[in-house]
Amino acid sequence: MREIVVFSGSAHRGLATAICEDLDVELSSVEMTRFSNDCLQAQLQTNCRQRDVYLVQPLCPPTQEHLMELLLMIDAARGASAERISAVIPYYSYARSDKKDASRLSVGGRLVADMLVAAGVDRVLTMTLHAPQVHAFFSVPVDHLTALGVLADHFLGQDLTDAVVVSPDFGNAKTAGQLARLLGVPVAAGSKKRLGDDQVVIDTIVGDVEGRRAIVLDDEIATGGSIVELLDRLAEQGCTEAAIACTHGLFVGKAIERLRGHPMVTEVVTTDTVPPPSGWPELRVLSVSGLFAQAIARSHAGESVSSMFDGVDPSLGPPQGRLFS
Amino acid sequence: MREIVVFSGSAHRGLATAICEDLDVELSSVEMTRFSNDCLQAQLQTNCRQRDVYLVQPLCPPTQEHLMELLLMIDAARGASAERISAVIPYYSYARSDKKDASRLSVGGRLVADMLVAAGVDRVLTMTLHAPQVHAFFSVPVDHLTALGVLADHFLGQDLTDAVVVSPDFGNAKTAGQLARLLGVPVAAGSKKRLGDDQVVIDTIVGDVEGRRAIVLDDEIATGGSIVELLDRLAEQGCTEAAIACTHGLFVGKAIERLRGHPMVTEVVTTDTVPPPSGWPELRVLSVSGLFAQAIARSHAGESVSSMFDGVDPSLGPPQGRLFS
Amino acid sequence: MREIVVFSGSAHRGLATAICEDLDVELSSVEMTRFSNDCLQAQLQTNCRQRDVYLVQPLCPPTQEHLMELLLMIDAARGASAERISAVIPYYSYARSDKKDASRLSVGGRLVADMLVAAGVDRVLTMTLHAPQVHAFFSVPVDHLTALGVLADHFLGQDLTDAVVVSPDFGNAKTAGQLARLLGVPVAAGSKKRLGDDQVVIDTIVGDVEGRRAIVLDDEIATGGSIVELLDRLAEQGCTEAAIACTHGLFVGKAIERLRGHPMVTEVVTTDTVPPPSGWPELRVLSVSGLFAQAIARSHAGESVSSMFDGVDPSLGPPQGRLFS
Amino acid sequence: MREIVVFSGSAHRGLATAICEDLDVELSSVEMTRFSNDCLQAQLQTNCRQRDVYLVQPLCPPTQEHLMELLLMIDAARGASAERISAVIPYYSYARSDKKDASRLSVGGRLVADMLVAAGVDRVLTMTLHAPQVHAFFSVPVDHLTALGVLADHFLGQDLTDAVVVSPDFGNAKTAGQLARLLGVPVAAGSKKRLGDDQVVIDTIVGDVEGRRAIVLDDEIATGGSIVELLDRLAEQGCTEAAIACTHGLFVGKAIERLRGHPMVTEVVTTDTVPPPSGWPELRVLSVSGLFAQAIARSHAGESVSSMFDGVDPSLGPPQGRLFS
Amino acid sequence: MREIVVFSGSAHRGLATAICEDLDVELSSVEMTRFSNDCLQAQLQTNCRQRDVYLVQPLCPPTQEHLMELLLMIDAARGASAERISAVIPYYSYARSDKKDASRLSVGGRLVADMLVAAGVDRVLTMTLHAPQVHAFFSVPVDHLTALGVLADHFLGQDLTDAVVVSPDFGNAKTAGQLARLLGVPVAAGSKKRLGDDQVVIDTIVGDVEGRRAIVLDDEIATGGSIVELLDRLAEQGCTEAAIACTHGLFVGKAIERLRGHPMVTEVVTTDTVPPPSGWPELRVLSVSGLFAQAIARSHAGESVSSMFDGVDPSLGPPQGRLFS
Amino acid sequence: MREIVVFSGSAHRGLATAICEDLDVELSSVEMTRFSNDCLQAQLQTNCRQRDVYLVQPLCPPTQEHLMELLLMIDAARGASAERISAVIPYYSYARSDKKDASRLSVGGRLVADMLVAAGVDRVLTMTLHAPQVHAFFSVPVDHLTALGVLADHFLGQDLTDAVVVSPDFGNAKTAGQLARLLGVPVAAGSKKRLGDDQVVIDTIVGDVEGRRAIVLDDEIATGGSIVELLDRLAEQGCTEAAIACTHGLFVGKAIERLRGHPMVTEVVTTDTVPPPSGWPELRVLSVSGLFAQAIARSHAGESVSSMFDGVDPSLGPPQGRLFS
Repeated sequence: MREIVVFSGSAHRGLATAICEDLDVELSSVEMTRFSNDCLQAQLQTNCRQRDVYLVQPLCPPTQEHLMELLLMIDAARGASAERISAVIPYYSYARSDKKDASRLSVGGRLVADMLVAAGVDRVLTMTLHAPQVHAFFSVPVDHLTALGVLADHFLGQDLTDAVVVSPDFGNAKTAGQLARLLGVPVAAGSKKRLGDDQVVIDTIVGDVEGRRAIVLDDEIATGGSIVELLDRLAEQGCTEAAIACTHGLFVGKAIERLRGHPMVTEVVTTDTVPPPSGWPELRVLSVSGLFAQAIARSHAGESVSSMFDGVDPSLGPPQGRLFS
Repeated sequence: MREIVVFSGSAHRGLATAICEDLDVELSSVEMTRFSNDCLQAQLQTNCRQRDVYLVQPLCPPTQEHLMELLLMIDAARGASAERISAVIPYYSYARSDKKDASRLSVGGRLVADMLVAAGVDRVLTMTLHAPQVHAFFSVPVDHLTALGVLADHFLGQDLTDAVVVSPDFGNAKTAGQLARLLGVPVAAGSKKRLGDDQVVIDTIVGDVEGRRAIVLDDEIATGGSIVELLDRLAEQGCTEAAIACTHGLFVGKAIERLRGHPMVTEVVTTDTVPPPSGWPELRVLSVSGLFAQAIARSHAGESVSSMFDGVDPSLGPPQGRLFS
Repeated sequence: MREIVVFSGSAHRGLATAICEDLDVELSSVEMTRFSNDCLQAQLQTNCRQRDVYLVQPLCPPTQEHLMELLLMIDAARGASAERISAVIPYYSYARSDKKDASRLSVGGRLVADMLVAAGVDRVLTMTLHAPQVHAFFSVPVDHLTALGVLADHFLGQDLTDAVVVSPDFGNAKTAGQLARLLGVPVAAGSKKRLGDDQVVIDTIVGDVEGRRAIVLDDEIATGGSIVELLDRLAEQGCTEAAIACTHGLFVGKAIERLRGHPMVTEVVTTDTVPPPSGWPELRVLSVSGLFAQAIARSHAGESVSSMFDGVDPSLGPPQGRLFS
Repeated sequence: MREIVVFSGSAHRGLATAICEDLDVELSSVEMTRFSNDCLQAQLQTNCRQRDVYLVQPLCPPTQEHLMELLLMIDAARGASAERISAVIPYYSYARSDKKDASRLSVGGRLVADMLVAAGVDRVLTMTLHAPQVHAFFSVPVDHLTALGVLADHFLGQDLTDAVVVSPDFGNAKTAGQLARLLGVPVAAGSKKRLGDDQVVIDTIVGDVEGRRAIVLDDEIATGGSIVELLDRLAEQGCTEAAIACTHGLFVGKAIERLRGHPMVTEVVTTDTVPPPSGWPELRVLSVSGLFAQAIARSHAGESVSSMFDGVDPSLGPPQGRLFS
Repeated sequence: MREIVVFSGSAHRGLATAICEDLDVELSSVEMTRFSNDCLQAQLQTNCRQRDVYLVQPLCPPTQEHLMELLLMIDAARGASAERISAVIPYYSYARSDKKDASRLSVGGRLVADMLVAAGVDRVLTMTLHAPQVHAFFSVPVDHLTALGVLADHFLGQDLTDAVVVSPDFGNAKTAGQLARLLGVPVAAGSKKRLGDDQVVIDTIVGDVEGRRAIVLDDEIATGGSIVELLDRLAEQGCTEAAIACTHGLFVGKAIERLRGHPMVTEVVTTDTVPPPSGWPELRVLSVSGLFAQAIARSHAGESVSSMFDGVDPSLGPPQGRLFS
Repeated sequence: MREIVVFSGSAHRGLATAICEDLDVELSSVEMTRFSNDCLQAQLQTNCRQRDVYLVQPLCPPTQEHLMELLLMIDAARGASAERISAVIPYYSYARSDKKDASRLSVGGRLVADMLVAAGVDRVLTMTLHAPQVHAFFSVPVDHLTALGVLADHFLGQDLTDAVVVSPDFGNAKTAGQLARLLGVPVAAGSKKRLGDDQVVIDTIVGDVEGRRAIVLDDEIATGGSIVELLDRLAEQGCTEAAIACTHGLFVGKAIERLRGHPMVTEVVTTDTVPPPSGWPELRVLSVSGLFAQAIARSHAGESVSSMFDGVDPSLGPPQGRLFS
């Protein structure tokens, strides 16, 4: 297969640029036109014929615009005789629509996967899907990366005395347990209580957090509402302070306002799967561009991508967690 | 097949309501949820099992939002065991992306057709596609309606002395000739000249317009720029006044400002394939809800839809036009 | 659509017969031939032309045999011009293979869904999928029934003083909370601890079980190993006795031996989604044939299936649970 | 990808041979058998395994025979494990059936595209499609070449004093404007008038032709009827003589008789996308074999095909035309 | 489903008319247009919406023309929202291309089946496929009728003393055995010998024919060459005379000349799956229109088609044949 | 394409090992897990990314288990981004279900082909399909190998005086004729007689066997019943002894018991397309691993596979057979 060509939609040009620098290839241009009737059109500015084409586009807000841009880029690459088209979707937001838990409900996670395939994508590279089953919504191969190693490296450089990894709920507890194992600290989790049909609150913390410093881990933070609620419970149970970590740091709505000045919060750490919010200089943004660049290089060279995560894969490490591991 | 169920996305609830009134069925509700990460979710509120389901949604701005709503509604209806799913798309905006006139260009008109089919649509009802070839972009049956009869009826109620139908360009001249034939008046067309690579101006008018009152016909008016340019040429060639008519009246950008106070313009007539703009009380909006309701009723009953347009189909009428007919 | 025709593979003729009795239709015959090279062949013995065909076959052991029988029956029905083919799969065992949690792993849950669709199935009726996301593995409509109401009815006829619903793990805790809410009792859950790479044990019980009588709920019981382990923990924490309930009662390997004489166990309750084991007269088997018959009848008549579960759907009931609800 | 292998159906072995000479590869043989029941069978005589296979076949009369030969060759190449199968269709005659302009009408342009894809074609190379939208009828990549540069080169070697490019109708006017720009001469077009339901005549010429020498350009000439009519109008308006140029020179029916001895006609120029008619030695046939050979070589080598037409692409040249450019 | 609509291509309007008379429905018109570039276009003249549409077209010579007509009619019916499209192909000539018995060979029998399905056919009705495996080349339901009962009825009205059914080769021997069983007479078969790579002759007759009157049965007679050869062998072995019977009587090339005046031949019997040849008044043509009409009526009504052949199905009758039955 | 990787299911690890030795590549491991609910899961233990992957698995008993293993391995390889996936199925047992010879019958030969393709297979390598038409059941390329050369080589090393090749029935007679031609001996065949609806016996032998030594050739021997019957007829007609040869030696049920001590049988020869039965040391098993290894190597290198059988292809040799050749 001929050389790698990388294009970026408008969702996160910064990440695409960083990936290209890591790969030592030039980021190719896309001319994205918006017509007066609001329709979009993509024109790829570099020859794709028989190339190994990568299209970088996380599905962050405005989500529908970014999705359509990605579909149009796939269509253009297919029409231009690309040899292989890989969508690099660091944040696959529609993964949250993964089940039909009410009658006559759309399941966006599967629908968008089918749209990408119908448009002509051959492979997908993504990171930290909300549920692992979403992987199987795609009928094409998916390389499912994790930022856990990057987050662990960040905390391993710090004093971890009295630290405890805390998951806001049981759904994410398994991943929290993996981080705890990598850090060699215990794990705890919030337990939710339903107040009414629509209202769910974090009721209590399962696991010992008294006198401890929490490392709160979630896959994605949008408005930050449940994190703040968790911080209240942690404070009530004697937790002294909290670092907040997540893979997908959207921070929309009141998220910055809520988290930036919170008395419990020592730092907020996220990655650049989505563009970081402006006006929050203290936010610590770890880059995953290196992981994506390596995955692209290995995929192009026909080398194993999964072996990149050998040190991170918890099943290979010794058991550490107290509660869920 | 069991009874008709009609749902509407958020693009044009007014039209959907009018169609339902004409059909004498109730418009069923859709709960459209926007999550904090900007993803959409559709839940249909009425049983679809073995029903003949119609989803009304013109693809007007914000176009990507409306397209995704439509795809999610199709997905929900399919998952809910609908017998037949028809997308009613009065304005298929992506029809303008109908060819690859540059290298590595997306062709949105075909892509969106494929997306709708991949999501599960069985049939499409639409009106006045920008190019007739777009019909064949769909691999499912399409009922392609025309508003020409509705527009002709409007003008047939007026004094047509010295009237001439004018098309802004040759591309739309054939349709203008059809209207001219229905009205029994001559036809003319603007001729375009390319000034530079990107700039195209209307250079002259082909056909006699001196001392005549123009009825300018276009399929779609967005910013109104080329219409204003045409009016200048008409004025130069001695045309006395102009009525403006179009099927899809988007009127975005400066369109209202340009057309509302123009000295040549006697009236602006459009249809409700898209929601009419606010703040323009004089705009004459003719409803096509009756046509869509009739097409739905006939389709449900297994009757011919094409016969609705027997009087409008120009090949059945006597030749009238002077130039292009 | 013409009348219902029901066929059964060899997996569970008893359930198919019961469904037919509830539907008041005759169970049609299938001649299933095994050739000397071990290949199977299905011949449907009743006319399927334009019929609404239902093929009853849970994917219980021998699983591959039962799957192939189902695929062959679908193929035969399709070739015989059936109008609509619904696979009634009360137990979809491959749902447990729902994610790729290691490199180069097959995902049987998606593969088998694709096989059924490729063979020609139009719809699927199933019950209590191991993970709700598996629903979206199918590209055809799925009616996903639940046995929760049937199980709740069973316990509502008993003295529920001091009762507590217990889930063996957090994964099933949400469903356990639903049962608790229906019964008006609290809920608890086992918490697992990893001893080594491959060994996971139930470490403790989250929630108060001391002096209480447990109703242990799981979706599926195969060898019964983790249930017995849970019973040990319950005993240690002062629980007095336990009723065991599950939807899919496979009871393979040492399951009967383990559960039948266990000092803590007061009763074992399951349903007939799979054939009950022989040699265990005390096992209480509740029939779900009525639910499937009703779902088939409603589906055939174009009525809502989801409304069958209005009383069971926890979001409609008042909040009851203490821990997870 | 391994080497190029080229096969030819019986439609135009001469062009295939010329392409192979330009490519410096040998034309591989096909044994095409016609059974006594008139069924065809193709056997490719050269190994195709993992080869880059090209099948040359314009869809000229007898059209159905040539189409079936092409489909059978595609089928044979697919079954023989070809790596990539490209149909080289210099004349895609079914492009004229590109819209549904009457009820219950077949759309052959889309149908044949779907047939080719269903048979297993991976890519298509073609030239001068009747409407540019037909490009998007294919769900596989299409390289759409143009003969405009070849035709322009021919006329650039002549005295162009007083020359004017004339299109028989407005549909082809845009392409005529491109040729005019390349030649640095003005452009004109015939304007059609409908006499009855079925009869359309060229009524007048738009643009100045008096005292000028016309270069009449059409995409395809079949019976030559409308060209002769255009010549009458040109003569009436004072045009002195006419060269006739077209890409696809079918010249069926009375075409040769009409054009060969016509007093206005100075020369007739066409290309070899279809076999030239016999018995017309003066016909000037320009070869496009070099363009196809170059497109094949570039496609095989992964180089841009569109860049072959940089000098011909009118959007890159200075504006020249008077009327339509 | 709404009423039956029947269209006919140009292959065999007589059969279509007869089927319609038997069905008591009117044959609907098709306007088949041939353009000057030899492309075909079909327009169905009757409303198809939600109708049960049948398209009658045997694939007899000119085979490619008839195939394309059929594909275009399917395309038109699909675009016109037909509920169900059944191709009635009494003679599926491409069935003879059913295997890949040389390298890089096309397999037209499968290819044409795929073409029909890609064009949009829902079902196929056909008769006497050359090999029964061809049935499974179609991915849609096929009703495979047989003319054996019609042929048997013809001979049962005659004196069958000393009659013997003779198959020209072993491939057709099983069917010949079925006819023999229905007639209560013995069976024999020709045995072929290969003289060279391409030449195969009938060497001898297996089974006793001396002093007997042969009823030669073949599925299809094209040039009649092998029949004449068989007659020579029959004469040599003492057979006194021969009646010739086949389902598909093409009689192309020298067939009439060979068979009409042959001293051994008492009569030639065929059916009207293809149009009978002109200029052969003695040819006995039995109509299968009634069988097709009945199959259509039963299919439309949802009744079994296979039960039409209960009396003909040899597995239900007593064993009669001597050699092969 | 990158290097070859070969995996084996549990059906015939011995053959896979031998193929790998011939190819000089290492057989890669598969971890096949059986869950307590009898579901299977495959994990490929070697990197497949962009590799040319071969999965060796004959569909011998337990057939359904082996089929599901193969499907799961294909699924795993596809998910692991294999470049090309070839299923090596030396024995495709479902080929016997190749036609619909009764109403509402499954056609397993086509169904299993569709399953393999739906799972993601790109190519199939197989040997001696029961009917050549089964080749065309696959919509992907099939390399159909033959063991005839291997069997011929075996007998060519023996004294062939008075030898005759005998086919048990006419269906296999063509292949028997090919072997006879390779050996330079005559051919004969058993002729079957139907006693009742279900009972078919071999009635007589066509061809001269008196005083000759038979080489009985069949494609597949399962229970050996018809072979024993044939031996009785051969003995009755004066045949002195018999060697038995077949490609697929299943030898299930009483086959060994029947054949091992039979007075007529001098030797039994088969190949290793399926694992040889245990407890039969005299059985002569010829290996076809070399043929498969060579086919894989040639396919990987893009060389012709069919040319491997040039010496075996009977159409290239001189005519030898007496009866059927």
